[in-house]
Amino acid sequence: MENMTTQTIQANVITPDELLAHWQGHRALTRRTIEAFPEKELFEFSIGGMRTFAELIMELLGIAGPGIKEIVHGETTALNEKFDHQNKKENLLKAWDETTTILNEYFPKIEEEDFHTKIKAFGQYDGTVQSTVFYFIDNEIHHRAQGYVYLRSLGIQPPFFWER
Amino acid sequence: MENMTTQTIQANVITPDELLAHWQGHRALTRRTIEAFPEKELFEFSIGGMRTFAELIMELLGIAGPGIKEIVHGETTALNEKFDHQNKKENLLKAWDETTTILNEYFPKIEEEDFHTKIKAFGQYDGTVQSTVFYFIDNEIHHRAQGYVYLRSLGIQPPFFWER
Repeated sequence: MENMTTQTIQANVITPDELLAHWQGHRALTRRTIEAFPEKELFEFSIGGMRTFAELIMELLGIAGPGIKEIVHGETTALNEKFDHQNKKENLLKAWDETTTILNEYFPKIEEEDFHTKIKAFGQYDGTVQSTVFYFIDNEIHHRAQGYVYLRSLGIQPPFFWER
Repeated sequence: MENMTTQTIQANVITPDELLAHWQGHRALTRRTIEAFPEKELFEFSIGGMRTFAELIMELLGIAGPGIKEIVHGETTALNEKFDHQNKKENLLKAWDETTTILNEYFPKIEEEDFHTKIKAFGQYDGTVQSTVFYFIDNEIHHRAQGYVYLRSLGIQPPFFWER
């Protein structure tokens, strides 16, 4: 049995623990990107009619914690991309850190054999647990990168992409 | 043996075939993003001193094909982020499609048990095969998203992020 378990782990492309660490690494980088914004521009600056970085961050906050709880509990959750941040960076960062704790608590409850279970995230998006988690991560990379362009446009150096 | 194989596949967070499809799905979206650029702006437009979208695409082309060949053959490759595109969109798209074929040929040669092998990509970047492949994909999502901001700034609607 021990050998079989070992073989299963070795044959995994990425283990659940590695996937959580991968996501939290990206989330640490996104946190530094929030920090890099001046408070005013975080809530007001945008390019080409896009959302502000604060609005993009609220989308990510609306997805990650509620999304992972929905995966674990199997109960449909409504997507909520707003909360009363009072235009304060510290309130976005506080919500970010609370989500970090939620992911660390809930993600390990996903069983390895559940990653291919079919789900409908937020009652709307068809996929499997794995495709949904990767979508959450990819969507974060996508929106954070847009924040990088905002920062460059403001003459501010973004954090290094490869530092997690 | 059949049961054991089945169990191993079910217990995988993401299978190699799924990971290749995931990457090629992202690459199809990046291809549509290249197509969405007017030819002149593809090679000339940028924001905040960043590279043009054509330069970002050349980085991605320099990484994907040579990177996957290096993983399969184990021979160190130098990173080359330039080629003579003659300021023609069709030449970028042709190189993109050639890389699509290379990935479809080489990626399946990676054995499942090799995804945790330690490597130094392009002789410089320490990681495992899995962390390197995810870095390649994440880096593409990152740069494509910057292209989205360029397009928005040019008044052009980018392709839908969720269409792969």
